[in-house]
Amino acid sequence: MKIIIDAFGGDNAPLTVLQGARDAVAEFGVEIIAVGDKEKILACATQNNISMDGITIEHASDVILMCDEPTYAIRHKKDSSMVVGLTMLAKGEGDAFVSAGSTGALLAGATLIVKRLKGAKRPALGAVLPGANKPYILLDCGANVECRAEMLVQFGVMGSAYMENVMGVKTPTVGLLNNGSEESKGTALYVETHQQLKDTSLNFVGNIEPREVPKGNIDVVVADGFSGNIILKLTEGLASVFMGEIKQVFTRNIFSKMAYLVVKPGLRLFKRKLDPDVHGGAPLLGVTKPVIKAHGSSNAKAFKNAIRQAKLCIETDMINSMAKGLIDIKK
Amino acid sequence: MKIIIDAFGGDNAPLTVLQGARDAVAEFGVEIIAVGDKEKILACATQNNISMDGITIEHASDVILMCDEPTYAIRHKKDSSMVVGLTMLAKGEGDAFVSAGSTGALLAGATLIVKRLKGAKRPALGAVLPGANKPYILLDCGANVECRAEMLVQFGVMGSAYMENVMGVKTPTVGLLNNGSEESKGTALYVETHQQLKDTSLNFVGNIEPREVPKGNIDVVVADGFSGNIILKLTEGLASVFMGEIKQVFTRNIFSKMAYLVVKPGLRLFKRKLDPDVHGGAPLLGVTKPVIKAHGSSNAKAFKNAIRQAKLCIETDMINSMAKGLIDIKK
Repeated sequence: MKIIIDAFGGDNAPLTVLQGARDAVAEFGVEIIAVGDKEKILACATQNNISMDGITIEHASDVILMCDEPTYAIRHKKDSSMVVGLTMLAKGEGDAFVSAGSTGALLAGATLIVKRLKGAKRPALGAVLPGANKPYILLDCGANVECRAEMLVQFGVMGSAYMENVMGVKTPTVGLLNNGSEESKGTALYVETHQQLKDTSLNFVGNIEPREVPKGNIDVVVADGFSGNIILKLTEGLASVFMGEIKQVFTRNIFSKMAYLVVKPGLRLFKRKLDPDVHGGAPLLGVTKPVIKAHGSSNAKAFKNAIRQAKLCIETDMINSMAKGLIDIKK
Repeated sequence: MKIIIDAFGGDNAPLTVLQGARDAVAEFGVEIIAVGDKEKILACATQNNISMDGITIEHASDVILMCDEPTYAIRHKKDSSMVVGLTMLAKGEGDAFVSAGSTGALLAGATLIVKRLKGAKRPALGAVLPGANKPYILLDCGANVECRAEMLVQFGVMGSAYMENVMGVKTPTVGLLNNGSEESKGTALYVETHQQLKDTSLNFVGNIEPREVPKGNIDVVVADGFSGNIILKLTEGLASVFMGEIKQVFTRNIFSKMAYLVVKPGLRLFKRKLDPDVHGGAPLLGVTKPVIKAHGSSNAKAFKNAIRQAKLCIETDMINSMAKGLIDIKK
């Protein structure tokens, strides 16, 4: 199994990317192909004492920047680490691709180079989020701000295949994000999607209200990219506000600081439970090969877990099961 | 100043409604007209030892239920506490109306009976939410799931008038909810709204990403009702999940329970800061008189604060300033 990584994607590249790759080789026994400027990669590895055992380098001289217009960059920066990596993936020179680079460029590149699965209208960006009871996948998280009902239905299929294969959930429950439980709720798009979802072989359990989403009782939460992005980003924002407030509670005086020492293990468990890095990155679903978008600010652990996620996608043949799901979508 | 209240709206009516009204009379010196079944109101007051000083009763034999179809109920339940109360408001027999009853019915009733302000396309439901830095108003929170750009622009005007008058914020900042800061972000609706907002006399500061919303740095967050409802409900849901997790942290063992006693004052401050009840209910903006939707599960304090909010709307002549804003919308 060979996993291709974009050594020059993300805020802390190539350092944390290489550290994550080294840890992944050691822990999961995968082979890594690191794509990017060879000299810089080797210099970074030497300076930081990173073993390159199990990691081969594929040279690419250019980098796609966060400020680059995504589609233009994919079409014109032919020697960028992202384009070279995706092209290798498309050619079968590796089994999955992981990048912490520009989300827009990765989406455009996966669509243009790796191509969509047969019948898939649009690839979607999924996010595996930590629910109070169990993790759930939310999709689309921002790849498609304007959607049609058939696209949302396909997101349900893709999310189900992901949860079943990669997360090991049997017949995952699928819920449609909506501002009420009744079938008639939401915009025309959501009313139509609800009817179409009822008509699939998915384990569709109806609408799920935003208040219920963070509980994690529903495995797959389907939304248009605009709404899904709100859920994703607001969850991040509120978690950060909440953690800031809790910190204030414990730094009020010497006694509260002592109290902190007592509850530290519990707070750590809580933080770990909320930590999105545990589940790796955001899978890009609906293309012919596994493509994982790691968080731009990924540290070594997050990047390692994104590689773990790519490995699981390959091992479980998630893509094949998704392809079948897209064909057998009707009951 | 006379404030009309729906004595039979909400999960705990008429008890908490009457308790809240009694406290409002005592604290704010307002006159209250409680609308609903006279016998039941008097019996409840007697049984619970609630002083009716400053509260007069307007008899209404019927009640609009949560399961009633909103517009049908408003048109046919002529003797319901909500319809009688709104009709009194429209006739000028009181200065504001507060109800913890069905949101849909209150919206339909306010539109049909109290009527829209001149030029207002649609009334919007605002929610005053506790931000990390300061409270902010979010609108629309669910009155209009399908919106046009001119409606969103008007929501900006309404929210500004509310924050300026009721919350005492000078030239409130207005942000457009969106999944990126660039003008080109979001659906066609949001791209168009951004351009139109730039062309108003509002203190428009551009797009606001969902991650930034809970910080409370922007006073007025404009959204379509579907997206606004997601923000509102997810904020509630995540707060509840977080609080549950924090509780677990402190109930792990005897030491963590002792630690709880130490940080209790800080946690209380934090909880109070997050408590939406402090700011009262959700103002229904864009109609000719102040109408406040109190939370269905309002306790006496929440209902009292909703009455306080109605009082502030009257005292500051919020409606008049909103009416002017809707006319002078262009730069």
